[in-house]
Amino acid sequence: MASPNPGETHRDPCNRAQSASPDGLDAIFRPASVAVIGASNRTGSVGHAVFTNILEANFSGIIYPVNLKSKSVCGVRAYPTVADIPDEVDLGVIIVPAANAPGVVREAANKGIKGLVVISAGFRETGVNGAGLEQELLEVCRENKIRLIGPNCLGVINTDPQIGLNASFARRKASSGNIAFISQSGALCTAVLDFAAKRNIGFSKFISVGNKADVGELGLIRYLHEDPQTKVIMMYVEELRHGHEFIETVREVTGGDKPTPILAIKSGRTTEGAAAVSSHTGSLAGSEAVYNALFQQAGVFRAQTIEELFDFAVAFGCQPLPRSNRIAIITNAGGPGIIATDVTIHSGLKLANFTEKTTEVLQSHLPSTASVRNPVDVIGDAKSDRYKAALSAVLNDENVDGVIFILTPQSMTEIEETAAMIPNLAKKSGKPVVASFMGLMDVTRGAEILEQNGIPHYHFPETATRAMSALYHHSQWIHRQHLKELVLEADTEKTRKIIQKALGQGTRYLGEVEGNEILAAYGFPILSAKLATSSRDAAAAVKEFGPCAFKIVSPQIVHKSDIGGVKVGITTPEEAIAAFDAIMSAVGTKAPGADIRGIYVQQMAKPGVEVILGINRYKVFGPLLMFGLGGIFVEIFKDVSFRLAPIRHNGARFMIRSIKAFPMLTGARGAALCDIEELEKCLLRLSYLATENPEIAELDINPLIVHEQGKGCSVADCRILLDPDRSCG
Amino acid sequence: MASPNPGETHRDPCNRAQSASPDGLDAIFRPASVAVIGASNRTGSVGHAVFTNILEANFSGIIYPVNLKSKSVCGVRAYPTVADIPDEVDLGVIIVPAANAPGVVREAANKGIKGLVVISAGFRETGVNGAGLEQELLEVCRENKIRLIGPNCLGVINTDPQIGLNASFARRKASSGNIAFISQSGALCTAVLDFAAKRNIGFSKFISVGNKADVGELGLIRYLHEDPQTKVIMMYVEELRHGHEFIETVREVTGGDKPTPILAIKSGRTTEGAAAVSSHTGSLAGSEAVYNALFQQAGVFRAQTIEELFDFAVAFGCQPLPRSNRIAIITNAGGPGIIATDVTIHSGLKLANFTEKTTEVLQSHLPSTASVRNPVDVIGDAKSDRYKAALSAVLNDENVDGVIFILTPQSMTEIEETAAMIPNLAKKSGKPVVASFMGLMDVTRGAEILEQNGIPHYHFPETATRAMSALYHHSQWIHRQHLKELVLEADTEKTRKIIQKALGQGTRYLGEVEGNEILAAYGFPILSAKLATSSRDAAAAVKEFGPCAFKIVSPQIVHKSDIGGVKVGITTPEEAIAAFDAIMSAVGTKAPGADIRGIYVQQMAKPGVEVILGINRYKVFGPLLMFGLGGIFVEIFKDVSFRLAPIRHNGARFMIRSIKAFPMLTGARGAALCDIEELEKCLLRLSYLATENPEIAELDINPLIVHEQGKGCSVADCRILLDPDRSCG
Repeated sequence: MASPNPGETHRDPCNRAQSASPDGLDAIFRPASVAVIGASNRTGSVGHAVFTNILEANFSGIIYPVNLKSKSVCGVRAYPTVADIPDEVDLGVIIVPAANAPGVVREAANKGIKGLVVISAGFRETGVNGAGLEQELLEVCRENKIRLIGPNCLGVINTDPQIGLNASFARRKASSGNIAFISQSGALCTAVLDFAAKRNIGFSKFISVGNKADVGELGLIRYLHEDPQTKVIMMYVEELRHGHEFIETVREVTGGDKPTPILAIKSGRTTEGAAAVSSHTGSLAGSEAVYNALFQQAGVFRAQTIEELFDFAVAFGCQPLPRSNRIAIITNAGGPGIIATDVTIHSGLKLANFTEKTTEVLQSHLPSTASVRNPVDVIGDAKSDRYKAALSAVLNDENVDGVIFILTPQSMTEIEETAAMIPNLAKKSGKPVVASFMGLMDVTRGAEILEQNGIPHYHFPETATRAMSALYHHSQWIHRQHLKELVLEADTEKTRKIIQKALGQGTRYLGEVEGNEILAAYGFPILSAKLATSSRDAAAAVKEFGPCAFKIVSPQIVHKSDIGGVKVGITTPEEAIAAFDAIMSAVGTKAPGADIRGIYVQQMAKPGVEVILGINRYKVFGPLLMFGLGGIFVEIFKDVSFRLAPIRHNGARFMIRSIKAFPMLTGARGAALCDIEELEKCLLRLSYLATENPEIAELDINPLIVHEQGKGCSVADCRILLDPDRSCG
Repeated sequence: MASPNPGETHRDPCNRAQSASPDGLDAIFRPASVAVIGASNRTGSVGHAVFTNILEANFSGIIYPVNLKSKSVCGVRAYPTVADIPDEVDLGVIIVPAANAPGVVREAANKGIKGLVVISAGFRETGVNGAGLEQELLEVCRENKIRLIGPNCLGVINTDPQIGLNASFARRKASSGNIAFISQSGALCTAVLDFAAKRNIGFSKFISVGNKADVGELGLIRYLHEDPQTKVIMMYVEELRHGHEFIETVREVTGGDKPTPILAIKSGRTTEGAAAVSSHTGSLAGSEAVYNALFQQAGVFRAQTIEELFDFAVAFGCQPLPRSNRIAIITNAGGPGIIATDVTIHSGLKLANFTEKTTEVLQSHLPSTASVRNPVDVIGDAKSDRYKAALSAVLNDENVDGVIFILTPQSMTEIEETAAMIPNLAKKSGKPVVASFMGLMDVTRGAEILEQNGIPHYHFPETATRAMSALYHHSQWIHRQHLKELVLEADTEKTRKIIQKALGQGTRYLGEVEGNEILAAYGFPILSAKLATSSRDAAAAVKEFGPCAFKIVSPQIVHKSDIGGVKVGITTPEEAIAAFDAIMSAVGTKAPGADIRGIYVQQMAKPGVEVILGINRYKVFGPLLMFGLGGIFVEIFKDVSFRLAPIRHNGARFMIRSIKAFPMLTGARGAALCDIEELEKCLLRLSYLATENPEIAELDINPLIVHEQGKGCSVADCRILLDPDRSCG
């Protein structure tokens, strides 16, 4: 029997424990003492930059420069090796040539150091030799239970005033805040620190992960989720090395108790393509599909640009989430109000309908030319009191879940006074408020007041509105409904035998005969069928099943219809005999050498909507499931949805609902409502099948026919590609 | 016969000349003397702000304050009325209460003033009374050939040093540059001036159009196109009041000789919905579809955000257009290079393949760890010489059409030196170069050097890449192929008679009988058909046509199949007689009162791909044409394209190619290639029909069946809705 809760107890026989526990990271982020191995007096060197950064960051512990030749570094007594340090050391920061690193790490291990930040480059990123050195580092760390960040990184920063650690060679300091940043690009870190400084954005932790030999994103996310200083996590990712473990862990971080929102930007650099692309699923999947599925399933918000990453992180860092999507807009100018309204509608938010009371309050405070409807236009000559009355009124309205506050600098506008009254009103209401004071120079002081008091500020109302939309979508994720899990039976033993037998015979493609056996073992609704080896057999089958399709069965024949190996709509025993003979004769001529096993006589499916279900397997991420409508919907519109297996009931429902053509299943164009419940079960069965049988490299059920509600589905055709190398047997 | 070149000589009987000639605008932008009517000594008043703005802008002409009470304004001798000014006056700037404005304008007319900027509010935007005042202003102006900007605007600015006119009450000055800005929102103007000042963006002209009583976007575009100071036009638009005239004029501006690129942002505020929404076309069209079509046909680039408007305008203002889309990326850090590569691919650009020579040159100048492939990574320790060698090499490469230049500030980076060498190399090459120096503070000086020397600079590589993509797409527009126009016959007389007759009888819906007559008159390939009034007629028709469809004809019956009024696949005379009787009997029972005209016996169409063609008419913009694949493609995917009629051959081809399902017409999924040439003709016929018959409010040809290449199309069903109020007869 398959597990009712595949996410937690799935039985993937290849499942291996992955590394990265959150434990031990305090040695890196909260050390009482740091040895800077390779600290240098030479201005301009990395060893000098790192050491002075630590010195200048008000580190609460003790710093020990380690330098073979110098007696002191920047006036601090130095030691030739780590071993020479007379006290205990928690963290080692290493800036020595790659070739010397393993030796230095061994010394550190002997000294009892529990955390390492290896800044030095020259490892995996340079080729085979470097990769060997990196492996050596990792082994020493594993043996000695040392946690390692890097190598080939910019370092780490912890702005917690109780720690004050800047173990990096970043030119600019990070100011203190509640956003943690994890970056796979060191160069981007520098640019990000610059950008953040200008926008008054502070960080809790700032981590350049480099080659991620030991600590990667997953371990850091676990750690940062527990960090009281961190409210939001931002990531720049080029590749992840965890699949389902990432989803299961991060889903709890972003959507469990005390959720921590995570925003990510993911750039190209595909590390591996799909295992094969001979199937539909294979040709549509790919690393973009995998990462989109991964992030969606984990509740990670994928930003499109670095700027968006910041725009949204700032909102998450200082604002509560809206209960729902009913937004009020306040403006002193028509144009920007219209722009914000447009984006509101397009980004899944809606304009709140004010209560009568709110309208009355607005009327009593605003001039007659003002608009007391949403968007509220307080008119160009509004001073701060009028703005305040309007903001107060809409925040008090139970129909309003959040406010977008717009100001354009006009001659009467009191920029600073207006900015100053927003934070208190917003905080008291418990509702999110985002602001756009338009223009960069005249409004600068107003924007600063907002930013310093926890109101996210944007140059343009479009961005403010999109930030509000991001808050709303995260709120939806957190409060999503969890469907009851379904108990689905599966004959795993039988399936494994069929697969092992096929692999034993050197078969890679399984056609309908074995395919249907496997699907049947997993509870898929397959059509009645029989392998007929004589025309009599065939006639008997037609008599038993009703209208049937005939298909030749031969391991050598993949494209059956091309050689006359398929006939459909066979209704009578007489037709059956004629069809059997016709197929055999055609195949005998067109494929004379083929090993013919018989003709597969299969009941014709009742009418319904044709959908496609697929599996495609990736090395790191495991099986990716695909769902879509068949035919042109897949081929031209690419209207499909993906999730990494295993999925839960929620995931199955989401996959079905997230294709554009979903209305085709719910009775669009006068058609009948389809059996979506059964379809959900089929997707769950697919997930079990994929998770429990790692030899299945690709699978297409194309089409699965979804009948009317209550009448189930039927597998009309399937194809399975096995990969002997994935076998765990 | 319909005109072969509909764009230039189309025969829309309702076509009226629209206003707005570019003539006379020099009186506004290049006056030798200005009267400021309502100039005031009172600090904080608009009359004071406008007057001091003009005074302080180094105006090359003479300024006359007009004030009933004061003898002087800001030390300048004032006059009680315009009539009292002893010299000639070109431009009047009016800041008096709306009620006094018509009188003042009359005085100005008597004085011989030829240009007016009416800043005062209180006109159309306030309701009926205000609209009356505005109409009065306009009439006086028209009678006296005065050009008028406003009312209800911020004013106009011309930074041309020979003029130096700032006739606005903007708080901030505009610096001189080559971007013209036209805004329908006064408040936005202020914010935009702020934003521009911070980003070192200069303007040629800056116009707040207000209520657009006389001069609107179209007149300004014509004028600015001739303005030697203006290289790019940016617009903020809430509604346009020109349809096809806008397209025809602006198309020449953006894509003719000496093209001037236009970038627009369009906000909501729909002024009118579609005429009716009972048709497919109607339900899919709407003001968004109209404006998208309008901008596309006119070659106006529609920006999504104000920030994007600036980002792109800056690039257009100072860079040449790329010949094609082969782009080189130079970076000193991997991550940002990957990000730029991603956007390159997604935005229609591609990575250039360097010639061998370029690769060799790069190898000789860059260290071995650098990447000499595209994107070129000069590595983090690159100084300006290495950057210079790389930029020079890729700009010299004939396979490179443009360069995206990325810098992240690292410890060795020479920010200013690197910035300083780019402009000359770029200019010499004649190829566009855009830059992203990442980070806001450390790189500030570098960014300034770039901006001051005509290299557009962006904080993030995504934006730089998108700006390059905008340049490329404009280059594509300018160099687009112009298809030869087709000569298509049409019997306009016959069509007009059918329409007039129907309207005379009070008919609004035309069904297939009259519909097909009209379509046939315009040369549409309709199926053979006969209106049979007896079963004998019907049998004879079937004998003549082959397999037929039977449909009841009655003005009262719209949904024919619902009451048994349709039968298809009638092949023999016997079937014909039976079918005729069956339909008559069913209809007699289900719709006893209906006026039955007979049964429409129509040849069954040969197989093909079903498409839909539609017309929906808008008050200002005229007929909007729609094209898409039939059925679910329209209803669920909304996969349709729109253009405003009339279209040219180019337009027809574009409409067909711009739907996602286009491959369905070119033999996707093993189907035959369709007769796209005939389909193009059908769209042109649709355009003529729409343009020449303003009474056609809506039309759906659904489906038009497109057969194999060479085998034409067939109209399988059509429906026309007439609007008697649109009749010009």
